[in-house]
Amino acid sequence: MSASIRARKPIGVFDSGLGGLSIIREVRKILPRESIAYFGDLAHLPYGIKSTEQIRQFSLQNADFLVRLGVKLLVVACNSSSSAAFKWLQRRVPVPVVDVIQPVVREAAKVTRTGRIAVIGTSATIESGAYPRALLELNRRFQITVQPCPLFVPLVEEGWRHDRIAESVVKKYLIPVKNKRPDVLILGCTHYPLLKPMIRKVLGPGIRLLDAVKPATEEIKSTLIRLGLQTGQRGDGKMHIYLSDRPRNFIRVGEQFLGEKLTHVHQVHLS
Amino acid sequence: MSASIRARKPIGVFDSGLGGLSIIREVRKILPRESIAYFGDLAHLPYGIKSTEQIRQFSLQNADFLVRLGVKLLVVACNSSSSAAFKWLQRRVPVPVVDVIQPVVREAAKVTRTGRIAVIGTSATIESGAYPRALLELNRRFQITVQPCPLFVPLVEEGWRHDRIAESVVKKYLIPVKNKRPDVLILGCTHYPLLKPMIRKVLGPGIRLLDAVKPATEEIKSTLIRLGLQTGQRGDGKMHIYLSDRPRNFIRVGEQFLGEKLTHVHQVHLS
Repeated sequence: MSASIRARKPIGVFDSGLGGLSIIREVRKILPRESIAYFGDLAHLPYGIKSTEQIRQFSLQNADFLVRLGVKLLVVACNSSSSAAFKWLQRRVPVPVVDVIQPVVREAAKVTRTGRIAVIGTSATIESGAYPRALLELNRRFQITVQPCPLFVPLVEEGWRHDRIAESVVKKYLIPVKNKRPDVLILGCTHYPLLKPMIRKVLGPGIRLLDAVKPATEEIKSTLIRLGLQTGQRGDGKMHIYLSDRPRNFIRVGEQFLGEKLTHVHQVHLS
Repeated sequence: MSASIRARKPIGVFDSGLGGLSIIREVRKILPRESIAYFGDLAHLPYGIKSTEQIRQFSLQNADFLVRLGVKLLVVACNSSSSAAFKWLQRRVPVPVVDVIQPVVREAAKVTRTGRIAVIGTSATIESGAYPRALLELNRRFQITVQPCPLFVPLVEEGWRHDRIAESVVKKYLIPVKNKRPDVLILGCTHYPLLKPMIRKVLGPGIRLLDAVKPATEEIKSTLIRLGLQTGQRGDGKMHIYLSDRPRNFIRVGEQFLGEKLTHVHQVHLS
């Protein structure tokens, strides 16, 4: 296939749920001509409580689906997948792969002044040790604090982002983190940016909050440019959303992430 | 197969996770000679946020696994499966099937004095309408209040059953329920009995809390007797636990439900 034909193909993005749409939102802002195929594995979500082997198997299924659709680049928008399966997938997929951990980790390394970096995420992401590993590869002297926050996702999905319960939960998880005096906190889960106002309120102004959205989108853009894969087409790119289960109330959550109406939604059955 | 050989086979129980072990605990108390094969579908949990079609597909996979093991009776210990798939499974499985909804609903109908009955459960269980349907089949004049409580399961799994956050969450969901003045509250999820102390504290003494454990176990016993399937073997029955993913921190949760150490745990891969 010639490079220009390949360049017209969509960018493939997968996540266990709809949180990865927050990356699509940014991609559509800075790369509006690119078409996108998004796969949300609602049938198997959440990944964050499952084993590495299981997450790899689901991730490969998702990747295969998108590769068969003909994507030119694969984005692993799920933190649990990125920690359990990113390098493993790179060896199994015939297109370049971008994850959500490496880009934000490089950003954290760039902006920290004290070298004290905190990371929050699901149990699977934290237990995998992927963030500390990636951070320490960049600088062995970083002091890293990690904290799993398993109640954050259900809080966001329930829509309780601003009330007293959210505040209590955020305090319970993050006051011990604050006491370690980090100057950067990585929000290692696609749902957590929706809790930013509450996290800021609890942590105060001295800690910089970083999430994967902007760094990952920059990584997507620079990878496309480096490989000559930017689309040459005019007009806005298309977006198709594939889900492995009926979305129930996830549409509401998904539209919060995407910042626009969810259209072109297809239900597919993978296994 | 002769009835006495069939009677020696284990009782098969499945759940999306380990909550169904609370029923095993009671079965082992009142039917100690019966052997048990338990299947926990950890790879696909939780069911409570997925579609009816998806829950049916998972449930049939679990049931097929246990039927191939040679169980004499199938217990659907998961509320989401019971509401989405009980009657549907009965038509597809060659052994008698007991669910966790019908028995507790009959118990509720028996003990209510005012006819005002409340039901709490996961989103899928509540949205399915299975409890109101089953209650109204028994008495069309029952007044039924339903309330999904999606944060209860993560609270239990986090081990936050007794603290201020649990109290706030229980109040947020259940004060509106209390205001409807039910005299019976059905806890329509295997995890919820672990929150009973907090629920009692919030609701006060005037509302009877019913869960599926005792009614479902009585149903299992009476079904075995009715069909001549009680084991004739002496000595304690065996228990084998099959899980579709590595159990991570679920072992701790599972032992809370079972009330004994988890042994004879096998990991199996279904699809």
